[in-house]
Amino acid sequence: MSDKSFDAIVLGAGPAGEVCAGRLADAGWRVAIVEPHLVGGECSYYACMPSKALLRPAAVLAEAQRVPGVPVGANAELDPTAVLARRDEVIHDRDDSSQLPWLEERGIELIRGEARFVGERRVQVGADTVSAEKAVVVATGSGAAMPPIDGLGGVRAWNNRDATTAERVPASMIVLGGGPVGSELSQAWASLGTEVTLVEGGKHLLGRDEPFAGEEVAQSLRGRYGVDVRIGATVESVRAGGAGLVATLASGGKLEAEEILVAVGRKPQTETLDLGAIRVEADEHGFLTTDDRLRVGGSAWLYAIGDVNGRALFTHVGKYQAWVASENLLGHPVEAIAEEIGPPRVTFTDPMVAAVGRTLAQAQAVGLAVRAVDVPTDGTPGASFQGKGTGGTSRIVVDERAGTIVGATFSGFETADLLQAATVAIVGAVPLTRLRHAVAPFPTRSEIWLKLLEAWERG
Amino acid sequence: MSDKSFDAIVLGAGPAGEVCAGRLADAGWRVAIVEPHLVGGECSYYACMPSKALLRPAAVLAEAQRVPGVPVGANAELDPTAVLARRDEVIHDRDDSSQLPWLEERGIELIRGEARFVGERRVQVGADTVSAEKAVVVATGSGAAMPPIDGLGGVRAWNNRDATTAERVPASMIVLGGGPVGSELSQAWASLGTEVTLVEGGKHLLGRDEPFAGEEVAQSLRGRYGVDVRIGATVESVRAGGAGLVATLASGGKLEAEEILVAVGRKPQTETLDLGAIRVEADEHGFLTTDDRLRVGGSAWLYAIGDVNGRALFTHVGKYQAWVASENLLGHPVEAIAEEIGPPRVTFTDPMVAAVGRTLAQAQAVGLAVRAVDVPTDGTPGASFQGKGTGGTSRIVVDERAGTIVGATFSGFETADLLQAATVAIVGAVPLTRLRHAVAPFPTRSEIWLKLLEAWERG
Repeated sequence: MSDKSFDAIVLGAGPAGEVCAGRLADAGWRVAIVEPHLVGGECSYYACMPSKALLRPAAVLAEAQRVPGVPVGANAELDPTAVLARRDEVIHDRDDSSQLPWLEERGIELIRGEARFVGERRVQVGADTVSAEKAVVVATGSGAAMPPIDGLGGVRAWNNRDATTAERVPASMIVLGGGPVGSELSQAWASLGTEVTLVEGGKHLLGRDEPFAGEEVAQSLRGRYGVDVRIGATVESVRAGGAGLVATLASGGKLEAEEILVAVGRKPQTETLDLGAIRVEADEHGFLTTDDRLRVGGSAWLYAIGDVNGRALFTHVGKYQAWVASENLLGHPVEAIAEEIGPPRVTFTDPMVAAVGRTLAQAQAVGLAVRAVDVPTDGTPGASFQGKGTGGTSRIVVDERAGTIVGATFSGFETADLLQAATVAIVGAVPLTRLRHAVAPFPTRSEIWLKLLEAWERG
Repeated sequence: MSDKSFDAIVLGAGPAGEVCAGRLADAGWRVAIVEPHLVGGECSYYACMPSKALLRPAAVLAEAQRVPGVPVGANAELDPTAVLARRDEVIHDRDDSSQLPWLEERGIELIRGEARFVGERRVQVGADTVSAEKAVVVATGSGAAMPPIDGLGGVRAWNNRDATTAERVPASMIVLGGGPVGSELSQAWASLGTEVTLVEGGKHLLGRDEPFAGEEVAQSLRGRYGVDVRIGATVESVRAGGAGLVATLASGGKLEAEEILVAVGRKPQTETLDLGAIRVEADEHGFLTTDDRLRVGGSAWLYAIGDVNGRALFTHVGKYQAWVASENLLGHPVEAIAEEIGPPRVTFTDPMVAAVGRTLAQAQAVGLAVRAVDVPTDGTPGASFQGKGTGGTSRIVVDERAGTIVGATFSGFETADLLQAATVAIVGAVPLTRLRHAVAPFPTRSEIWLKLLEAWERG
């Protein structure tokens, strides 16, 4: 039992917390970071990183099969054992020791345990009381939300953690939720041999993106990966039985599978913080309410960054918010704007879906006079070498009054890195007439910009 | 023998000429396009396209070997026959019939033959005289320059056309010139089994790019592809003999090979135009001198676009200039600025080298107060999935007074599409402080932007 004091306490050692702690320590602050589980967070061990490790091999195999001369047969298959071993390497076998030197080099004290607020700028971790002279930054992240489905609590349902770290390939799996997590993991496991049924209650997969993106992903999951995609379907109850469990749909149909993965959303990880002790604001889901400097309730000492504030649940946005918060704490006022503009996001399915800014519908909903300009993603000469014939759609959403882009979506083969140019154009408010001079090299797939601008000019 | 009249005559049906003719025809102009060889031009049949077809398979094979679980052995080799067959497919077996409908749909008259000026707005093609009421656009492109090396004329030396269309893999090859063409073709043929010696007279390969780029390419050509790279070496004479020919170096050493590829530069294709008939300006190499609207000598009727004006010899710049010229002809004044800013360019070697704007040395030479910021290209989490461990350097050149980027170079695994964000940032003059809000998605390789901006902030 001891009392410790720092300039700042960061709660949570995921990407947002680590970046914030690092920046404050680099500026000379004495910083403690409190983490009950693994340094590196959900993203490193249970989300972005392992899912990419599971998805990449199939993407590379498919491309190798498309390029004549590469010695891979048309019926070649992945080696699941090797894929899972590489996944384990990526997540360091869930051992965070390789992350610790980074903290040590910066003099950041790692306190393992759960923090509980006991007053302003004071938390308790186990038997210790830790106080901050300047600030506490909440970066405790989010966990998988479990929907109130009859019987779901009685079966061994998987969340993203189970699905990204599974050590064998299930014979069959029901996936609840066709957002990025459900879509990516459906494809990943199907590519390794699992018979997957994906159940989405909305009208499209990837409901927050342009409708064409979800439709293209659904078509690909069905056609290339053999996934049974059920759109507009809901599971009413789940029972143990059959191959493992039986789910009953609202339509009356039944699905049987070995495993069920629940990927219907996230909830903030605040239960153990005892927020009542400091009376903070939160929305109806429990996400902490922040201003654009990431301060909770306008407080000078309490910040919330990353998933826990619910502004935009992406690792990169969390890291961005870590920069915003640390700049403000260090006396350089800056406001977070990326979430309002529409944060960049990539779903690493086949087709990949990369988007930034507003969709057409989102732009119209806020009253902008917008026009969508669409071209095929594989319509450039460069695309005859990369992802030949893989289709996809590229869209920019143009604010016709301002003459700028307010949204962009690229679905298709490895579109992730086509996105940044759109992000710069949107954030920089670069006029379309100026973008016409931003020539893309021939023959690269970035010539999609030429196609988009020509299509926009044609009206 | 006949007299024909059009609104515009475009000389040359390469990418620049085709785009210009198409835009004018779309605007209702009566357009003729004159081409002595293949519609589609050098790029489609003998340059960009076939070289990419030759390079892509090795890149895909290498990546497949890096990703565990993809069924490709560490010693797997390309099938050269399949690679060459795919190359032939890409260049349509040098048959341009698939290009003709595009012209026909636009009502563009294709006149096959060589044009010769016989007066203002008048050319002769074979027995026909063709006149333009409004404009003549010269887009005749460039050809390989042959250096004055003793004996070179007496051997069957290859130029880019021979090297991109060869129907068998030579056992050995000397490549003269380590620019983009020489570097790409050295790697392509080496990857198919040719023993290549690359001779470059300057200090680095890719002499117009950042020095580190040429050094990294040289190291890779030597280490991964077994190319004998000779920097600072010059060939003094060439004679038939040995395996095919023997080259004598200025150092006295001798090189023997089956073939010799000359890739030391380009010259404008203007010999047959009889430019004396219209008295136009040209530089010392014969490239036509244009203003920023692409007019030759300020003329209202004579334009020059593409390689022939020597402003920047790239297909994409030619297409850009076609847009600039057609806009001006159609009464919408616009000036070409991409060449002055520093045109984007990609060398598709391994590592790939993608660059835009000024190099550090070029920026210093024009008196800018610049600082170079370098980070490893494979240092992002995204790069652990794509091109793992392949190295490379990413550099931005920052104008410290303006707070903007004036140049960027990305060497490494498939960096071509990382470039466009830099091009937009430079052309849009987006301040670095604003770029900090252009968040890159996790885990994509575009997070190189975060690394670059963090490194810049650290100073």
